[in-house]
Amino acid sequence: MATAEQRTFASVAVSLDGFIAAPDGSMGWLHDVMRRDEDYGLTETMARGGAVIVGATTFRESLSIMVGAGGPSSPTLVLTHAAPEAAPAGVTFCAGDLPALVAQAKASTDKDVHVFGGGETIAQLIEADLLDELTLAVAPVILGEGTRLFATPVTRRRLALISCRSFPSGIVLLQYERAE
Amino acid sequence: MATAEQRTFASVAVSLDGFIAAPDGSMGWLHDVMRRDEDYGLTETMARGGAVIVGATTFRESLSIMVGAGGPSSPTLVLTHAAPEAAPAGVTFCAGDLPALVAQAKASTDKDVHVFGGGETIAQLIEADLLDELTLAVAPVILGEGTRLFATPVTRRRLALISCRSFPSGIVLLQYERAE
Repeated sequence: MATAEQRTFASVAVSLDGFIAAPDGSMGWLHDVMRRDEDYGLTETMARGGAVIVGATTFRESLSIMVGAGGPSSPTLVLTHAAPEAAPAGVTFCAGDLPALVAQAKASTDKDVHVFGGGETIAQLIEADLLDELTLAVAPVILGEGTRLFATPVTRRRLALISCRSFPSGIVLLQYERAE
Repeated sequence: MATAEQRTFASVAVSLDGFIAAPDGSMGWLHDVMRRDEDYGLTETMARGGAVIVGATTFRESLSIMVGAGGPSSPTLVLTHAAPEAAPAGVTFCAGDLPALVAQAKASTDKDVHVFGGGETIAQLIEADLLDELTLAVAPVILGEGTRLFATPVTRRRLALISCRSFPSGIVLLQYERAE
């Protein structure tokens, strides 16, 4: 059941020069920095989200593997222009009507909606003014090249910083929300 | 007189998506966020630097105006491939030998060396392993397009976070140094 208080939120790890993936797509640059004793708010993120929106590429490359054969623990909406005929249990493939997608995600839970990525999906939701919160996990790494944070155009806008938290690894969480 | 303790440091303002200037070069996106009652460590930065290294474009577009006709308050080395015949008092034009440039800057002061920018000069010094500290002032703004933080190639490297400080405006200072 959708409520007025439900928020859409996204978290994404980024190098200090604004890349979210190396040219070959590998994430070693990030995993080498992360420490097992640092949580990066992930427990809170997972507890908070009652539904997931994810882009087709990210779903195929990571989420579908993570959730395995048992299906996802939360209703999962995959944004895609090429929906397969059969969807795994708990997974719905949706075309590009973003307001309808977000409304459907909110209707499937009383909790918040976790936009799992990738960067293109996050950018599209920001551009449609449908993302309430964006958290960047800034890694103390210069990548120099790779996939940009926003691979699709996002017009200039100001956000409001909600919180800033650093970890001994040097990773910094910057939590933003839509500016009023 | 150069000493072993002297450090080279650079500070640069960046949008949360990794741009240091809008496509037209204007900085209104940053000035609209900055507050008069927030210092962003600038007083400390100015006090700490005893010499300045600056790229030719940044010198021409901002520093030469700032310092005015009286010349700069600190010895200023301008990195350029097209040195004019006459240099203002206190200003030295230098070609592209970066180690010599840094050595010359350190020899001109007992204090640290402030790399004033722009992004290309900072990137070249990082790539040559000649920059000891890099501070990013991350503005709570998505620019979407413009000049990238590192316009010239920088190979992948890890830095160490020294400090993280946020301001009510939403600007966050991320201070990094070379990782050991």
